[in-house]
Amino acid sequence: MVQPKTAETIFPVHEFIKQRWSPRSFSNEEIGAETLKTLFEAMSWAASARNEQPWRLIVGVKDKGVAYNKIFSCLDPWNQKWATAPVLAIIVAKKQIEGKQNPSYAYDCGAAMATLCLQAISQQIYVHQMGGIDTKKVLTSFQITESEYEVMAGVAIGKVGKVEDLDVYYQEMERATRKRKNLEEFVFGDNWGNPSSDIF
Amino acid sequence: MVQPKTAETIFPVHEFIKQRWSPRSFSNEEIGAETLKTLFEAMSWAASARNEQPWRLIVGVKDKGVAYNKIFSCLDPWNQKWATAPVLAIIVAKKQIEGKQNPSYAYDCGAAMATLCLQAISQQIYVHQMGGIDTKKVLTSFQITESEYEVMAGVAIGKVGKVEDLDVYYQEMERATRKRKNLEEFVFGDNWGNPSSDIF
Repeated sequence: MVQPKTAETIFPVHEFIKQRWSPRSFSNEEIGAETLKTLFEAMSWAASARNEQPWRLIVGVKDKGVAYNKIFSCLDPWNQKWATAPVLAIIVAKKQIEGKQNPSYAYDCGAAMATLCLQAISQQIYVHQMGGIDTKKVLTSFQITESEYEVMAGVAIGKVGKVEDLDVYYQEMERATRKRKNLEEFVFGDNWGNPSSDIF
Repeated sequence: MVQPKTAETIFPVHEFIKQRWSPRSFSNEEIGAETLKTLFEAMSWAASARNEQPWRLIVGVKDKGVAYNKIFSCLDPWNQKWATAPVLAIIVAKKQIEGKQNPSYAYDCGAAMATLCLQAISQQIYVHQMGGIDTKKVLTSFQITESEYEVMAGVAIGKVGKVEDLDVYYQEMERATRKRKNLEEFVFGDNWGNPSSDIF
């Protein structure tokens, strides 16, 4: 049973953005290589400072190479409880640009992953990003040079599964109402901390 | 004359993602408050670690309050040459979460802005983000506490204008072919740095 938790918005936000959501229940349905390539190409077209494209992905498809199990073993235990999606990934940032720190690497990686998420939803595929991963273990398992790269997040990719298949604890989270700040809480104008008088 | 520089993709990437592009030529056409609110609400629905939503915006609409000119004065000179869009903004990150550093603040801000960009393109509105801004000046002009917040990027928002209205130097950039890495250059698998054998 699919349960798209479409956001209830005040303004006419595009359906894909309303539908994007981070489920914990994933179905076993495979996501084919051509579909995955489409998601990754979508990601590649995100904006980045000086078009550096600092994002790198480690991707593992369940029951294929060793990457999937290696990635899974780097997830924190509470994520391992649910993150059994058909595809797991880790997004890693290249920190430098021409030998100097790139001030935008994390920001640009977030943009690329958000772009992937919206491409995915346009194909009824859902993505759940995870901060709860053992970043040291990622670096050592995949022999990544820490001075050059930083682990950003874990990523689960797949079709939505049945909420009933989750542990009861996660079922509650899965059914909880989605909430966001009001615009006046983060869109400021002439004076920092106050809603923009140009707009509200 | 509008010149949408739609990305030429190998895989069937969604039109919005192909059309998203960072122009330098903006038309004078105003972007109304209701439209802007839609963009900002779209942004609010991005994913963030612990749903912290660390993004804050300073927004200025041309010929309204003082924010627009204050923002413009914080742009680097080479951006001031072209960034005369009807709406300017600065995205600022809240760095802490419950008194501790939020490891995901920059990544999450990038995700929110990418979501705004895709909402914008669905309404034929373009966004150009700028790393070239005087972040110290932003903090002092808007009296923002540096220990709590970090300036991420400047943002120009509007409809596309005529490339011929730009300085010749920028016209070349505006007409240049858009390029991205091949997927094999950033989608790794079992071995870091090598294309994923699960996918390619």
